[in-house]
This record gives sequence, structure tokens and C-alpha cells, in this order.
Amino acid sequence: MDADLVGDVSEGELLRRVFAVLKGSSRALIGPGDDAAVLATPGGRVVATTDTLVHGPDFRLAWSSGYDLGYKAAAVNLSDVAAMGATPTALLVALAIPDDIPVPFVEELARGFRAGCDELAPGCAVEGGDLTVSRTLTVAVTALGVLEGDPVTRAGARAGDEVAVAGELGRAGRGLALLFERFRSPDGEPIPVDAASLSPEERLDLAAQLRPTPPVALGPVAARAGATAMMDVSDGLLLDAARLADASGVTLDLTADLSDLALTGGEDHALLATFGAGRVPEGFRVIGDAVERTAHPVTLRGAAPDRLGGWDPYRDWDAGTG
Amino acid sequence: MDADLVGDVSEGELLRRVFAVLKGSSRALIGPGDDAAVLATPGGRVVATTDTLVHGPDFRLAWSSGYDLGYKAAAVNLSDVAAMGATPTALLVALAIPDDIPVPFVEELARGFRAGCDELAPGCAVEGGDLTVSRTLTVAVTALGVLEGDPVTRAGARAGDEVAVAGELGRAGRGLALLFERFRSPDGEPIPVDAASLSPEERLDLAAQLRPTPPVALGPVAARAGATAMMDVSDGLLLDAARLADASGVTLDLTADLSDLALTGGEDHALLATFGAGRVPEGFRVIGDAVERTAHPVTLRGAAPDRLGGWDPYRDWDAGTG
Repeated sequence: MDADLVGDVSEGELLRRVFAVLKGSSRALIGPGDDAAVLATPGGRVVATTDTLVHGPDFRLAWSSGYDLGYKAAAVNLSDVAAMGATPTALLVALAIPDDIPVPFVEELARGFRAGCDELAPGCAVEGGDLTVSRTLTVAVTALGVLEGDPVTRAGARAGDEVAVAGELGRAGRGLALLFERFRSPDGEPIPVDAASLSPEERLDLAAQLRPTPPVALGPVAARAGATAMMDVSDGLLLDAARLADASGVTLDLTADLSDLALTGGEDHALLATFGAGRVPEGFRVIGDAVERTAHPVTLRGAAPDRLGGWDPYRDWDAGTG
Repeated sequence: MDADLVGDVSEGELLRRVFAVLKGSSRALIGPGDDAAVLATPGGRVVATTDTLVHGPDFRLAWSSGYDLGYKAAAVNLSDVAAMGATPTALLVALAIPDDIPVPFVEELARGFRAGCDELAPGCAVEGGDLTVSRTLTVAVTALGVLEGDPVTRAGARAGDEVAVAGELGRAGRGLALLFERFRSPDGEPIPVDAASLSPEERLDLAAQLRPTPPVALGPVAARAGATAMMDVSDGLLLDAARLADASGVTLDLTADLSDLALTGGEDHALLATFGAGRVPEGFRVIGDAVERTAHPVTLRGAAPDRLGGWDPYRDWDAGTG
């Protein structure tokens, strides 16, 4: 028997199926079901961020399951909250779904959101959302979080600080390259992944791309350790390090041995942070030093890199062929 | 000279143009530009809601300007915050934009967001966002707000309460009907509105549809007056009143003279609230009473309505012809 399509059931029925997956996970004062959620914000401040995954430039249904997509949409938003030094408490999920999507795909999406929250940010849950029809499957997520102390911005790094990262660099980029090289038809269309053809290392690369596990819990750890600046690395280490350097008015000199893909591969969702000398907490590894500002925001053992790299959706994605 | 298209400029340049429009409006502890915004939440709670407008089912570029679209996307979300009795403080805006959209359209969209906030919820501003490319223009908004007292849910109406509304009923529905009847080509495609052909009344109908002005400030007024239940009327009064009645376990008997369109027309973004007898504040008008629960959630002078009506995107919108 074929599964129901989204277009075959009412909005109310689709919501009932989604709520069945999310049931019991809400920690809000008022969770899903009213005009808005009401969340506790101890400390009188809330951290808020939004990030969207669009079918085409951001994911392909031939490559991502509903579970993968929900997990990734949760993960990339949780990572932005963590990068402020905050603990995520709630997601709001706005889904725009074509009516020929099978209903079980939407339930898997909800399962992915739930698993992403449970594994990466226990205590965080989907507390609100919106469902609408669209020609293009779009998952827009807002994540909210709370702070123990002051937020960690991109602007506080000082010359003399150590530069450190938590999380993997380059693996998600390798996973994307693998999809583009090995799982497209001769005319460039995505085709399903043949997992049996992958080495164990390649499976990890693919998982990093399709179902990333950013070190969300290490955001508040960094804040407690006195991180002077922090950000989520999502557009490639060099480009994002340059942004942190520019915001802080320093140069970041990277001294660790980093591959080209680690320097420029996108979607790492690692945490890049700076700490006073000797204050780097467990879970982070030192990759360089902040120094007085030079002509270049980022240097590699003192030398300017050839290019910063990085991903720009309007430059890099072609709706016709991408 | 033709305007730049979104696909002609970098993401950074597009963001610069949008920030130029929004500049100076942020009231956040940390506004746009970092991984996440940080907002003050006096009272230790935050109200959060999300609502998305998708090109096709929710708006048409032939009918809506960028300004209209930004204004409406702000308004419908501000209305949901108000319906909890809260005052909106921040919007997060996730835009998914085709690369053939002219850049000035995006700037007009930002102007519409700013005007919507300034006019409907002074003190509220766009404090964060996300920009991505898509085949389908999609505007996903999250609105946050703060409470003076307890939130007003849909669940607190009691038999004996008066039922009241603030804002217009039916006008937005008439505006939509006008667009469908008078501004489509013979094959059903939207065509630009000829404003000169409209009567003054029709212009108001159209404005209510394209650029709604929900009574956002009356949400906290209702809360202060002791509203026992409240909600945003967006799917038609009868259907939404039935939802409030079901949540509260009462029947709402509507006694006012209400047209068919006022009862079932969508997108009013009026506030429906219940108050103890004699406690209805200025700005609301009484339309009926809450009574002991009967077989029907809503009655019209004691009689069950033929149908509740209301809008379901998966049932009512056809991607091929809509």
C-alpha cells in the first residue's frame, strides 16, 4: 500500500501525526497548540537565531532522508545558539511542503528534529511551528537559548589569545564532494547513495554532511572557561576566522597542520573560539594564536592564504544545474 | 537602467543593502550580525511564534509589492504574539529568494518589515535573519514578545463570559475575492491591480488583504483587562471560535449581526477574546457570550451553523491552477 501524500490529508491530520512524534518532549510553559509558545528565560535574556534549509541548494531528497533533514536542520541552528555560549531551550519549525511529499517523510522529519534535540541539546524541544504548502520543500528553523553569564560574541578576541576549535573540520565538505562525485547521474541529477560502496571513513564523511553532530554542549563550556570570542564555523574555517578577526580587530595566525578542505570546506558547524593563554577547556584543540592586527585577517604560520574560499549561495548555486 | 537581480550580487552585498534599511531600529542587547541575537526578556519568559508566507498559496508577486509582503509577514506574526497578551519585541526573518528577484524588491521587503514593526508594535524590530536562495520566494518569520502578567491562552473561557473581537472581520476575505474575480487573466494567472478601477471601499478591502493592520496593541490591553481566553482570528471567525471553544470546554454563542464573509473569510488577524461580564475593554466589541458546552462549539443565536468554513492550504490550494 502506498503511503498517504501530504496533499491527501488535511493540515489538521498532518499536524496530529507530527505532534504524535513530538509528544512529551515539550519543556515550555506553554508548548505547541496555542497562538505562540511561552518559554522560561531565567536570567532575563534569550538568545535567538534562524537558519533555513531549502531543497536544491541546501539538500537533495535523493541524498537526505526525512530523518537526516530534520536532524541537520536542528543541528545547524543549535550550533548557532551554542556559539553565543548559550544552552538551547526551544526550536520553532516552519515547514513549507509540496503536496506530493509522503506523509511518513514528514513524520521522519519530526523524528529527526526530536533526535537532534535529544542527542545534541538535551532539554531542548520543538515548541512551536507552522505548516504551509509550497512548490519547494523548505525547513526554516528558529532556535532559542539561555545564558548563564554574558554572551560570547565574535568581537572580543585580543592579541595573545589562543585560537581553538571544537568539532571536526573538513569532513562535511568531503561528504559533499563525495555526493557530487559519486552519486549523480551522467546529466548531474542526484541519485541515491549506495552505502555498500563506501569505506568506513567515507561513511563518516557522508554522515558529517547529512547528519552533522556539532559540539553544542561545548558552547556553554567555552563561555564558562572565559572564551573571549566564539563563532560557528559554517562557511569554511578561513572565511569564518577572518570574520571573527575583523569583528575583534586582530589577526588570527593559524599554526596547526590543516588540510585545504579543513581550511575551506563548508558546513563544519565546529566552534571556533579564542581564550586567554592557558585557558583552553577540554574538548577544544589549539590551532593558532590571535596577534596584533596586520594587513590580513587570517594568516597561516605568518603567511597570507591564497584565498579565503567559502560558500555564497547566490554565487555558487545555479538553479538550472545545481 | 535595469535594477540588479539578487543573482547578480553577493550574499554579503545583499545583506548590506538590507541592513542599510534596518539600521538604527535594533533594540536588542545584541542585534543582527553575530551567530544569534540576544534579547532582553524582563519577567523571565518569552513568547515565541512562527508563520511563513510562500509565493503561490500565500501571496502573488503580481498583486503584492515587496513592501506589502514585508508588512504582511510582520503583521501576521505580531498578531500571534498579541493574541497571547504579549508585547512583541523582536522578529527573526528567514528569506529564501530566487536569484531573478530584483535587489530593490528585497530592500522594499525590508522597508515593509520595518514599517510593520514601527506602526503596529513600536519598539519591535528585526533582530536577526537568514538569507538563502530558492526557486520559491518564501518569507519565514519568528516573532518574540514579553509578558506583563500571565499569558492568555485559548483555554480559559468560562460560561457567562462575554465574547468580543478587536479588528475587522471579513474585509481581508473580500479583498482576496476581489483579486481573484477582477485581477486574473482569462487563464487564471494574477495580473496587476488597476487601482483606478476600485471604489474607496474596495481599496480598503484590498489593503486589508495585502497589508493588514491587526490590533497588536490591544493584545496586552486585553490581558490587563483580565481576558480569560484570546486568539488570533486567521482562518475565519467560526472555525477559530470553535477552536477557542473546544480548548476552553464551552460553547460560544454569537449574537451580533455578522455577514457570511465575517463568519468564514480568512486572514482577518482580528483578536477574539472572552472577558468576565462587564469587563470588555475599549477597542473590543461584544459579539456574543460563552455558555455551558452544548453539542456544538459555536452557535449563532443558539442555532448550529451549516458549516464552520475556513482555509486549509493542502485542501484549498492547487499548485497547478491556484
